[in-house]
Amino acid sequence: MQDNQLSQQIDFIKEIDKLKYIQRKTKLFNSDRNENDAEHSWHLAMMAIVLSKHANVPINVLKVLKMLLIHDIVEIDAGDTFMYDTQKNHDNSDEERIAANRIFGMLPQDQAQEFIAIWEEFEEQKTDEAKFARAMDRLEPLLQNVSNEGGTWREFDVAFDKVYQKKQAIKHGSESIWAYAEQLLHTSVENGILKMD
Amino acid sequence: MQDNQLSQQIDFIKEIDKLKYIQRKTKLFNSDRNENDAEHSWHLAMMAIVLSKHANVPINVLKVLKMLLIHDIVEIDAGDTFMYDTQKNHDNSDEERIAANRIFGMLPQDQAQEFIAIWEEFEEQKTDEAKFARAMDRLEPLLQNVSNEGGTWREFDVAFDKVYQKKQAIKHGSESIWAYAEQLLHTSVENGILKMD
Repeated sequence: MQDNQLSQQIDFIKEIDKLKYIQRKTKLFNSDRNENDAEHSWHLAMMAIVLSKHANVPINVLKVLKMLLIHDIVEIDAGDTFMYDTQKNHDNSDEERIAANRIFGMLPQDQAQEFIAIWEEFEEQKTDEAKFARAMDRLEPLLQNVSNEGGTWREFDVAFDKVYQKKQAIKHGSESIWAYAEQLLHTSVENGILKMD
Repeated sequence: MQDNQLSQQIDFIKEIDKLKYIQRKTKLFNSDRNENDAEHSWHLAMMAIVLSKHANVPINVLKVLKMLLIHDIVEIDAGDTFMYDTQKNHDNSDEERIAANRIFGMLPQDQAQEFIAIWEEFEEQKTDEAKFARAMDRLEPLLQNVSNEGGTWREFDVAFDKVYQKKQAIKHGSESIWAYAEQLLHTSVENGILKMD
């Protein structure tokens, strides 16, 4: 590999350090400290390694890890979009596409294309890997909110129906994890940390 | 997979959230904010994906990613060990082994054994994957220190010879990345951000 390729790759590695400054709405477990996107991405990757055998169908774990490690990098330019934001759709926005082209475009061309394709695959939610990755992305904040007595559900006054609808994405990745998550949502209502309506 | 296995896995996933509180000595790029172990692990995993083609021999990238994502989890119990600490060896200590057994031991038995084995493989530095993973772990703080006008080299008064000796581990993972790193060390001396002795 040529020297100028390495130099482009190092520039990209420096650039993505900025992910550590992107604050999510969700707090760390049992904490009032916001999680940042780099911590979040590491945690989802760990979850995928630990939980991969629960996937509905056998998945390519390397592909899932790449997806989860890069899935929020566009937020360096586009900012974090909160799942229960009523104004802005969390899905693939024009702003995020421009960000993907700029940031992944710092890499040598073949890698830039690979990274953009993986990011698009995650956003499009058609493949088994994308569905399992999304399941991880939905499960982590659910666990965090339960550990924080409602967390963002209470803070932003979100009710069961909306949460349940968003969390159903877990089912497309893993029926067994969804069974666990669904139970957790019902228990959260019983415990008064998630309101019914 | 049985429900109690999932329950053990979720407990592990909650436990490792603590990695986000383990502060490293090294600062983020162009910053005076300390990096934490979760951010560091994410960054090394990204570096491995981006730089894997520079490895001296073809490597199993999935294995490397698993290593890098879990390599610092023992520090939840054992704490961060600074590379230039003269009192404490950074290598596999008894304290870290006990931590590995406790934390990875929270997982179902087959996974616990797999994770401990991967962590040991990284620490032992015998396989190509372990060597490439270590190269990433040596390269990131070097880049950070250069971006921070010497960073921990200046803060802890570390000289070229010691840094050069520690960074040579990069060569065992990638000769081409080492050539880049070696040049960066010499330039750092020329620029007065790394003292000669």
